[in-house]
Amino acid sequence: MENFSFLNPTRIIFGRGTQSEAGAYAAKYGKKVLLHYGGGSIKRSGLYDQVVQSLSDAGLEFVELGGVQPNPRLTLAKKGIELARAEGVDFILAVGGGSVIDSAKCISIGVPYEGGVWDFYDRKAVPGKALGIGVVLTIPAAGSESSDSSVITNEDGPYKTGLSSDIFIPKFAILNPELTYTLPAYQTASGAADMLAHVMERYFTNARDVDLSDKLCEALMRAIIHNAPLAIKNPEDYNARAEIMWSATLAHNNLVGMGRVGDWASHHIQHELGAVYDMAHGAGLAIIFPAWMKYVCKHDVTRFAQFANKVFGVEYDFWNPENTALEGIARLERFFESIDMPIRLSQAGLPDIEANIPLMAKKATRKALQGQFVKLGAEDIEKIYHLAM
Amino acid sequence: MENFSFLNPTRIIFGRGTQSEAGAYAAKYGKKVLLHYGGGSIKRSGLYDQVVQSLSDAGLEFVELGGVQPNPRLTLAKKGIELARAEGVDFILAVGGGSVIDSAKCISIGVPYEGGVWDFYDRKAVPGKALGIGVVLTIPAAGSESSDSSVITNEDGPYKTGLSSDIFIPKFAILNPELTYTLPAYQTASGAADMLAHVMERYFTNARDVDLSDKLCEALMRAIIHNAPLAIKNPEDYNARAEIMWSATLAHNNLVGMGRVGDWASHHIQHELGAVYDMAHGAGLAIIFPAWMKYVCKHDVTRFAQFANKVFGVEYDFWNPENTALEGIARLERFFESIDMPIRLSQAGLPDIEANIPLMAKKATRKALQGQFVKLGAEDIEKIYHLAM
Repeated sequence: MENFSFLNPTRIIFGRGTQSEAGAYAAKYGKKVLLHYGGGSIKRSGLYDQVVQSLSDAGLEFVELGGVQPNPRLTLAKKGIELARAEGVDFILAVGGGSVIDSAKCISIGVPYEGGVWDFYDRKAVPGKALGIGVVLTIPAAGSESSDSSVITNEDGPYKTGLSSDIFIPKFAILNPELTYTLPAYQTASGAADMLAHVMERYFTNARDVDLSDKLCEALMRAIIHNAPLAIKNPEDYNARAEIMWSATLAHNNLVGMGRVGDWASHHIQHELGAVYDMAHGAGLAIIFPAWMKYVCKHDVTRFAQFANKVFGVEYDFWNPENTALEGIARLERFFESIDMPIRLSQAGLPDIEANIPLMAKKATRKALQGQFVKLGAEDIEKIYHLAM
Repeated sequence: MENFSFLNPTRIIFGRGTQSEAGAYAAKYGKKVLLHYGGGSIKRSGLYDQVVQSLSDAGLEFVELGGVQPNPRLTLAKKGIELARAEGVDFILAVGGGSVIDSAKCISIGVPYEGGVWDFYDRKAVPGKALGIGVVLTIPAAGSESSDSSVITNEDGPYKTGLSSDIFIPKFAILNPELTYTLPAYQTASGAADMLAHVMERYFTNARDVDLSDKLCEALMRAIIHNAPLAIKNPEDYNARAEIMWSATLAHNNLVGMGRVGDWASHHIQHELGAVYDMAHGAGLAIIFPAWMKYVCKHDVTRFAQFANKVFGVEYDFWNPENTALEGIARLERFFESIDMPIRLSQAGLPDIEANIPLMAKKATRKALQGQFVKLGAEDIEKIYHLAM
């Protein structure tokens, strides 16, 4: 097990009706709130009104900025930074999914910084101060509600780049599974693929002697694989919704990655897809992850066999463990298919995908080789895109 | 799944050599430290000198109070409170195991409180302020390094009573598995029993639809059961020591108990033993838990059968699940025996134990019935003590 430092200070308020507590928690940290959200769904569902009421009950002033899109844009975050400065905002309440929260994180470090906020994502500066953030979560997927990461798309590239920092881990996150009842099946499934990918990125490691964290990863993956189809089949199954909502948070709060180095190549490979095609992150991962697995499987057949056996219950083939390993990858593909995720680029309706592969592969490696489990260059990534076709 | 609120803000600094960081972390919170510890073992091992050096390197002043005993005493904590007040201490560094940390927590809330600190444990007051606490852990067992609980023995009873509060959750905890190499086998085993009990208290619940947390509990239990014997067999097995050290923390930071109501009767039943006989907490739990299980098994055979199957790999008897359930309890006893834990009161050399049972049972229920899975009165608890004979 490798040395590690773990910090996860977000207070999780979980369960039915908890969105009414947003104002009271926000009031612990600020007086004037930037209410940040995406499209109109929170207005249609009534959540917007409930949150506004809660802020008002807590005696808080607020200004608002909606319009966050999937693959959140730098331009909107910059607008948020200007608005927050002009209005003297001292706390941000993100109401939405990972995109809204990631955008809020970008704003939180941009407000007190004199330079352009992209400096942080471009590794030209390290954030030293941030406004506090609270979350009312509506999409279980990215885990951003208690993670230390923010992924922003700079339209001027386009580049989709992640940043990690303890400084913008949310102060609190309100998770009410009922708020996810209205998620379309595609988004629920895409979220499940995303959270599963967060665990798999950590699971595929070269670290040895990581028994407990292996087992915790396997527990999370099995819970996601068991409950996501239930939630898709019956969108108002509170318990299935609750299991995947809590799974999404634990999949990406770093807990299950402690003492080991994760891989993350699949995320980078998918980010380039997301930057060009603006596709749902989870759907992209459902395509890329199995292809990545096929490409790197021989690097550690034992680990892939353990994945197959412990996560999907594939019987271990003592005489040919590679069979077990490959069957695990096949089962993962079948799981994604069972929740109507695409598993091939050719299924995803992406114009000119073949022609774009070389450029996406080049952009994925523009800063460094990708992946820790296996280091991948642009040629490797091209091959993975082709395996995913 | 039940509504819950989860907060676990302790920064964990885990791995080889990390004790040298104690001063730097303490300096984030205070200027004058109370260095709190137990007997002479940290002086013999050199840890005391390393920590003092680290405090000095960080420019911190300190005063010290050693002498914390297992089942930490109110009298010593009161002495610490007086010392901290007299010396203007603003931070407590606990170097030791659960007893030292629990004593530090008692001191932390006693210093700013005008009344007697037992008021909090006796539920006559609720702590509103506390000094910050940091930990250098030497015994993986109690999980107090990031838990919200403190158990203190008031010699004037004797009463052994626990208190939970977010306010004294440690700011940071330094966990170096190397510091546990010198633990005697008995203490390692007793620690393993303690951490396993913390998970089992949460596992045996009447809450339904707790799939993820069941799986996380099972992952932790299997990791403890696999690694504790390795650490006992080879005390310098870094990886086994690391697995149980991290397991102990996760077993009691509330994570695996979210969305469910734990039982905790076995802890209360053991606390009375600890108060009268001053026996190692884990050893007492190794005796009490199986007896409690036998007494309550019929209340939920399915849950006990799941425990047997998922934790000990007992094949599920579809036609007679109670057989599976009972075999799980038997396997737990065998596990405790394999690490040289007592599993019967009669093995533990406790003078007048038979005669003391009625009084201990009465004291265990002096405030209320015990247990949430099954509510137990004094008569039930007497029977459990007898089952444990």
